[in-house]
Amino acid sequence: MAIGGAEDRTSDSIILRRFAMLCGNGTARISVIPSASRIRNAGEQYRRVLHDIGAAQVEVLRISERSDARDEGIVKTLRESTGIFLTGGSQVRLARMIGGTPVGDAISELNRAGVPVAGTSAGASVMSSVMVAGGRSGTSPRSSMARFSRGLGLIDSVIIDQHFAERDRVSRLVAMVGYNPGLLGIGIDEDTAALISPDRFIEVIGRGSVLIVDGSEMQTDIEHVQPAAPPTISNAVIHFIGEGGRYSLDERNVVPQD
Amino acid sequence: MAIGGAEDRTSDSIILRRFAMLCGNGTARISVIPSASRIRNAGEQYRRVLHDIGAAQVEVLRISERSDARDEGIVKTLRESTGIFLTGGSQVRLARMIGGTPVGDAISELNRAGVPVAGTSAGASVMSSVMVAGGRSGTSPRSSMARFSRGLGLIDSVIIDQHFAERDRVSRLVAMVGYNPGLLGIGIDEDTAALISPDRFIEVIGRGSVLIVDGSEMQTDIEHVQPAAPPTISNAVIHFIGEGGRYSLDERNVVPQD
Repeated sequence: MAIGGAEDRTSDSIILRRFAMLCGNGTARISVIPSASRIRNAGEQYRRVLHDIGAAQVEVLRISERSDARDEGIVKTLRESTGIFLTGGSQVRLARMIGGTPVGDAISELNRAGVPVAGTSAGASVMSSVMVAGGRSGTSPRSSMARFSRGLGLIDSVIIDQHFAERDRVSRLVAMVGYNPGLLGIGIDEDTAALISPDRFIEVIGRGSVLIVDGSEMQTDIEHVQPAAPPTISNAVIHFIGEGGRYSLDERNVVPQD
Repeated sequence: MAIGGAEDRTSDSIILRRFAMLCGNGTARISVIPSASRIRNAGEQYRRVLHDIGAAQVEVLRISERSDARDEGIVKTLRESTGIFLTGGSQVRLARMIGGTPVGDAISELNRAGVPVAGTSAGASVMSSVMVAGGRSGTSPRSSMARFSRGLGLIDSVIIDQHFAERDRVSRLVAMVGYNPGLLGIGIDEDTAALISPDRFIEVIGRGSVLIVDGSEMQTDIEHVQPAAPPTISNAVIHFIGEGGRYSLDERNVVPQD
């Protein structure tokens, strides 16, 4: 479950409720990993909220340097979870902290085995194999916008951006797909989630939209133009998907609604 | 020539130079129509700049109410022009002032006969038959973003938006095309122009991009959702086109570069 950041935590908390439900609610054991954030009690708020909306057990895993991500006690707690929540902050920091560690490996294995993993903002971006590492937004596409890094690899062949409409990131996502037309761009608005099921369907939940950028037919000169000059990027297919809409990652189309 | 606003007027003025050249430079007689603007000397700056970069004769037509747009002297001057320039301001004001008047009719006829018409910002939006009249931007698409009015009809089957990346208007243009998939959306960045030739090719000039939104294959529920809720809009094909790039309005594709 990739959340675009700033999800409602005080009112009906639709997104977090859905996550808690997926984790088993009354039988849930959720591990919150706050390592993307530099704020000391970043995980605490989620612990409280997830607990208040019905998750039986919620624990914050204290991973604030790479050695913590090798701690056997932490890995053991994690492996007993029925759900994992990654907070916001910096996806680069999060990847640096847990990428390639026993904690990082456990997250991948558990998720493959069916344990739900939710991430908000940075925690959403870190889920893909190729991850957005940053880059300016707010103009039409520029090659300089595309800065990549390695994510946790929970989901392949996509790149996930967040705070999407709020930070005017359409052009940045198109530029990133321009560099990797094999990747599918997924841009998630705030208080909105893309729930990716094991059979590779996306379901949209929340107040905003999810934008899909499909570069299958894309043609571009992005690698030839100067970083600050606008490239030509043609034949990008885009889909804005609102609440309840579904998209098939394998078929690459929006599932028609009844 | 549709200009996205804020075109360079003090340095090399590439866009205005190109327009002056199309009008004949040393033999040019350009009429500037400042009626979109409420500022009293809005036309004067363009008169000076166009003159300084080589246009032989530049006259500002004083049309500040609808009756002026029926003035025989003004219509006569206009009909002797080798080029017409529409300033920025409000496209609704401009359409209200000259739409359906002898001045409005003369602009259409002259343009059809090959006289170049340039418009910047509001002056660009007013060129289409169905015109963007306003609407909020800055979120993913909403039906409430699509507000239309009637333009001058110099070019059919398109809708032109401006200050495009600068004011984060991608979603608004996609929403407007969602209402009219037969229309082609053209979004023009600042200091950037879409030069539309009589044989219906667009050539991009300037510092930014032109975004084309092609709704031919679009599917959407935009008419069913609440104005403030995000609709699903799928299969929009988009093209970002930079300096020197060309697009065929009839073929609906980007012309490959050599």
